Amino acid sequence: MNQIDKSGSPSARLFLGDEIATRIGQLGRISETADCLTRVYLTREHRAAADLILSWMESAGMRAHLDAVGNVCGRYEGEQSGLPCLMLGSHYDTVRDAGRWDGPLGLITAISCVADLNRRGRRLPFAVEVTGFADEEGVRFGSTLLGSRAVAGTFVESVLSARDRTGVSMREAFVQFGLYPDEIGSAARARSELLAYVELHIEQGPVLETENLPVGVVTAIAGATRLAVSLVGMAGHAGTVPMALRRDALAGASECIVAIEEFCKTDQAGLVGTVGYVNATPGATNVIPGQVSFTIDIRAPTDAHRKLAVADIVRRIEAIAHRRGLALQIDITHESRTVPCASWLKAQIADAVQVEGYRVFELPSGAGHDGMAMIDIADIGMVFVRCRGGISHHPEEHVEIADVDAGARVLLRLIEKFRPCGSGQVT
Amino acid sequence: MNQIDKSGSPSARLFLGDEIATRIGQLGRISETADCLTRVYLTREHRAAADLILSWMESAGMRAHLDAVGNVCGRYEGEQSGLPCLMLGSHYDTVRDAGRWDGPLGLITAISCVADLNRRGRRLPFAVEVTGFADEEGVRFGSTLLGSRAVAGTFVESVLSARDRTGVSMREAFVQFGLYPDEIGSAARARSELLAYVELHIEQGPVLETENLPVGVVTAIAGATRLAVSLVGMAGHAGTVPMALRRDALAGASECIVAIEEFCKTDQAGLVGTVGYVNATPGATNVIPGQVSFTIDIRAPTDAHRKLAVADIVRRIEAIAHRRGLALQIDITHESRTVPCASWLKAQIADAVQVEGYRVFELPSGAGHDGMAMIDIADIGMVFVRCRGGISHHPEEHVEIADVDAGARVLLRLIEKFRPCGSGQVT
Repeated sequence: MNQIDKSGSPSARLFLGDEIATRIGQLGRISETADCLTRVYLTREHRAAADLILSWMESAGMRAHLDAVGNVCGRYEGEQSGLPCLMLGSHYDTVRDAGRWDGPLGLITAISCVADLNRRGRRLPFAVEVTGFADEEGVRFGSTLLGSRAVAGTFVESVLSARDRTGVSMREAFVQFGLYPDEIGSAARARSELLAYVELHIEQGPVLETENLPVGVVTAIAGATRLAVSLVGMAGHAGTVPMALRRDALAGASECIVAIEEFCKTDQAGLVGTVGYVNATPGATNVIPGQVSFTIDIRAPTDAHRKLAVADIVRRIEAIAHRRGLALQIDITHESRTVPCASWLKAQIADAVQVEGYRVFELPSGAGHDGMAMIDIADIGMVFVRCRGGISHHPEEHVEIADVDAGARVLLRLIEKFRPCGSGQVT
Repeated sequence: MNQIDKSGSPSARLFLGDEIATRIGQLGRISETADCLTRVYLTREHRAAADLILSWMESAGMRAHLDAVGNVCGRYEGEQSGLPCLMLGSHYDTVRDAGRWDGPLGLITAISCVADLNRRGRRLPFAVEVTGFADEEGVRFGSTLLGSRAVAGTFVESVLSARDRTGVSMREAFVQFGLYPDEIGSAARARSELLAYVELHIEQGPVLETENLPVGVVTAIAGATRLAVSLVGMAGHAGTVPMALRRDALAGASECIVAIEEFCKTDQAGLVGTVGYVNATPGATNVIPGQVSFTIDIRAPTDAHRKLAVADIVRRIEAIAHRRGLALQIDITHESRTVPCASWLKAQIADAVQVEGYRVFELPSGAGHDGMAMIDIADIGMVFVRCRGGISHHPEEHVEIADVDAGARVLLRLIEKFRPCGSGQVT
């Protein structure tokens, strides 16, 4: 299926998958714990990973440095020095007990693509930069996208007061790491420096696998609304309260959860709704739950669709609570806008996919990515790579080497054929 | 409505409620923590409560002692000494953050009834014993009915190895308390010593309140089956897995919980089913739950009815799991037989209720009681007293003083009119 690239070296091209997979393995061994992968912000493991990635950047012919927020930044000059750049990137922090691919695949693939250009002495009419964001997952301090927000100039000072679970504040962690909170602003880049931001990332879902495709073109990063729901009924002894006299908060919550699933299942436009957390109190086998808390996560490819769905789901929950005599509280705990990928970048990515011999398939990203921050200073595009079973945030997260190679070929093709918006025929 | 007793002193009778409520208050202050009531087995609070109750027994004209398992035992001789006894009783341990009435009401009411007999110099053709069981709730060592099992001669030696949450074994706790595990057998009573065991207890449910009655005649202590259910689906990212590709363990569990409630609601014969505990893992807002555990507690007034219901509920859960592609495991974690109250005792209790001017109303006990152990050495009977809102195992547990008084009058009437099975007209 894969065509031989006519402009580059086919043998070098076939080696990218191997190199990338080897480096994924090397980076995956830098972990807080020996038995599972956990690498969080401003730790010794962060430092060790940064040092390794910086060395890869340098050997790929890039000028590399750690920025003021702990991102690794590499720059491969274009035909002249100082040109605006196509920025590629992804993150190199992980969740706890993580897989090795979420984040690092995009970062390492970008470095290998640049290395390939460098090996061939290929210079482009723009610079290529690769940024490894230091904190996307937000595990340590509970605030996501810290690295890309700093680059986009939207880092919020107040998060420096956040503390990790051992009580260390982010401000203290900066100093311990050897960075200076006062200098975070220097990590920010100007819109004029960037031609676009493009990220390759594992899909973290099962759609490409179902479509039997190694790569896909991302249409948008879906916005999300998160709700916290509390239902209060009446606790009681499991043996002594007849069914007709109960106000069981868990039975009510269960009816809500089934209703949310039914509502989202009937939607044909990519709506997803998830209840991931539930807590019933007092939580004893022989006590009717008097109070239940649960969360709802709702995502859709457009903001309008998501907002309508949220309103509809809230109405259904209200009706269930009312009928059962349960006191209800619903709070919105998080809301993020949908971030669209730029049409001109989608078109160039689609071209690269097609030239590499794959069917062009578009899909939204249900997960959040650094592009959500980068959109503030650049148009964004994303390439998804198939991952096995759609599994992510889990040690079994895996990408077949053939798919790693396919992703690398598409990204390299995109870089080499890249035309900034307005400068070529693709708009 | 209440008739004046012709055989005793009406003014003394009206004071029982006051005395009982005052003592409920005194006993309720003996707690492990100042801000809530917790009094568990073989602790300093157990000792302090025992000393107080023994003093009440003695001032009621009883010979009183602490038995080998920590029960308080009082004996009021009949017309001759050494006669078999009508044993009255209840427990004086509590759950954590308990109400003051669950257990103590029956124990203190029995003591006040004996005190009333004693004040009037009334001796009966049988002895009256009052037993305060030291551990019914099983909070400290996770094993219930320890006090009454010792009296019934069914105390299981192996529970001495159980440890509390600080790591102290029951055997060690015995020694620290000043009791000797080797002597537990001496707490056992012979069937020939008991004419019957009768317990007064708060209902712990809302049925008497709904019926507008202060007291009820218990038909049986309902048997219970407890099940542990595990459903395993596939965890996944809340944003990246389309609804149609999910195997959401929590959505499946919710459907089961709704089905259990529906099944029990349509039953007309007193079946109750409760899901009191649920745990979804990993339990994050943005992750589809891959695994859910929950418990089911099923009770019915007869064993046959309960067993049919359990089988039916299991079939429904199996069907839901199968349809959703979820791996299912169901284990029975607890099973207790239904313990019927003796017809001849129910009849005598009903007579006492009627003579005191109340409508006779029968109801099963959905909660477990010491009679479940005592049935091994005696026929059992139970009187329920209305509690406010059906609330129990909660600081707001409450009994109105008029109902305390009603319960005491019924119990005293029962004692004074008591005829051992076969010795009178009531059979």
